[in-house]
Amino acid sequence: MDVRKLLHMKEGVGQNSYANNSSVQSNVTAYAKSSIEENIKEGYHALGPKCFMMADTGCSSGPNTLSVVSEAINVIDEACRSLQCKVPEFGVFLNDLPGNDFNTLFKFLPSFYKWVAEEKGSNFGPCFVSGTPRSFHERVFPCNFLHFVFSGYALHWLSQESRAREIVPGGSMVLTFLGSIQSTDPHSLHELLGFTLHDMASEDMIEEEKLDKFNIPLYSATVEEVRQLVENEGSFLINKLEIFTIDWSVRMMEDSNHQAKFLVDSIRAVFESLLADAFSEAIIDDLFVRFETKIQKHIAAGQPIEYLNILASMTKKT
Amino acid sequence: MDVRKLLHMKEGVGQNSYANNSSVQSNVTAYAKSSIEENIKEGYHALGPKCFMMADTGCSSGPNTLSVVSEAINVIDEACRSLQCKVPEFGVFLNDLPGNDFNTLFKFLPSFYKWVAEEKGSNFGPCFVSGTPRSFHERVFPCNFLHFVFSGYALHWLSQESRAREIVPGGSMVLTFLGSIQSTDPHSLHELLGFTLHDMASEDMIEEEKLDKFNIPLYSATVEEVRQLVENEGSFLINKLEIFTIDWSVRMMEDSNHQAKFLVDSIRAVFESLLADAFSEAIIDDLFVRFETKIQKHIAAGQPIEYLNILASMTKKT
Repeated sequence: MDVRKLLHMKEGVGQNSYANNSSVQSNVTAYAKSSIEENIKEGYHALGPKCFMMADTGCSSGPNTLSVVSEAINVIDEACRSLQCKVPEFGVFLNDLPGNDFNTLFKFLPSFYKWVAEEKGSNFGPCFVSGTPRSFHERVFPCNFLHFVFSGYALHWLSQESRAREIVPGGSMVLTFLGSIQSTDPHSLHELLGFTLHDMASEDMIEEEKLDKFNIPLYSATVEEVRQLVENEGSFLINKLEIFTIDWSVRMMEDSNHQAKFLVDSIRAVFESLLADAFSEAIIDDLFVRFETKIQKHIAAGQPIEYLNILASMTKKT
Repeated sequence: MDVRKLLHMKEGVGQNSYANNSSVQSNVTAYAKSSIEENIKEGYHALGPKCFMMADTGCSSGPNTLSVVSEAINVIDEACRSLQCKVPEFGVFLNDLPGNDFNTLFKFLPSFYKWVAEEKGSNFGPCFVSGTPRSFHERVFPCNFLHFVFSGYALHWLSQESRAREIVPGGSMVLTFLGSIQSTDPHSLHELLGFTLHDMASEDMIEEEKLDKFNIPLYSATVEEVRQLVENEGSFLINKLEIFTIDWSVRMMEDSNHQAKFLVDSIRAVFESLLADAFSEAIIDDLFVRFETKIQKHIAAGQPIEYLNILASMTKKT
């Protein structure tokens, strides 16, 4: 299986699209907000670049994608006002796999540029957004190119992270990704998805052999593993490294059926392409109906559906 | 009419797509090859950047798009071999309107990266390609960002060209676009398209009023107008500025019906979005059938179908 070809969020802006089903990712990003602010402010003060270069790796194609960029723009704008200095230009690079739906993402750009012009005025920036389609298993940017990198909820797809050379000394990264207390613990939702697939195999709706071969290419690291990795690599100083919980059975929706539907839509937007490739398009609708029933029962039994997440903030040594 | 929203080449890779109907554009680019080589070689020798930044403005989404990039890579690779110096990294920016089909364009990237790796070896580059969706009526890149800009067959859509600030001193541009001996001369193909629309209006298939309002937003400048524009702007020294002819009734296809089909497909890929917006989707197929008949008669009568083009090569003053 070539994950680089298959793994992409659901395209477009339809009911099942990632663009319409990524509010969990947005909650995680909100949690990272203060770290993003701190790092950008410090990086900008220390380096004072004429053009502040930032990247969002694993940007996907939803409305969340530009929220970190907007956040960064607000932070630097505020810093420049308080220092009474000229706002830099902004180079923004949105990175995801070549199969990501960049067309949908780019359709948000005219209104983003309009927001910048109206909110910040014509003396601000300007800001230049590009899409950089490439697997972040490889190098994506030139050496010493970026002042700030954000990656929201994407690095658990990675077995290695190799941004060090691409960041200028004094530049920084804020990363959020799935984490675990013990990296062998299963996530409750993934477990329920597994049970659903096993049911379908026992009813001969999918081949046992295909199921045996199927793995979700996710790795939930522990805080300790991340610390080791960063220290061994040696280029970065850790500013913050913490684990936090997000409860997916969100209180705002009291009705457990609506909760289940919300969760299934979120998971479907992320996993549909992988599942369809492994077992065929034909079983997908059935699979997600069954999965939804399983989640409804799980919630009705009062069991929690929560994810552990890691927030890592680090600055490249000078 | 917001040209920035409407004007985009036909998406995808289907029969009528720009990707499959842009061989004329490729002939024009071939004509520019030696200028591209000269400018890149000189720019690279003069500036010796660690990362050579280049842009293709008005890149569209066909297989031609990456041919200029490949050309540039070959030129610099050769220069480095003969000078026995390290090849720089390459930052490549493909620019077109946000409505351009970037997804189709990005699907060519994995095979492009494969070509680079196989052709040039693992010590080469690396090369990083991004898409920058923005109207080139505005600024597209940060100040002093690019070493080389190419624009193939797109600037005739422009009433102004404002790349000067984005290019580093000593960097250069090679531009090709429609030209004319007198800027009021009509192009034969556009004239035939106009006659077709008039026929349809006289048969009440399109509204006279809409036709009166319709203009193709093209401007064919003369060499003298271009020279004046460049000199008045003041940032660039002209290396080469010439007008050349491309005969669209290409000899390789002896059969005039095939020639007509080829021409209609080329024109349709470029103009369909504008025409559908002005007169409705419903008339498009009929319009192009009629247009094809007109071209067949034109060719059968022995009349030439040729375009004048301008090639401009210039270097930013240091």
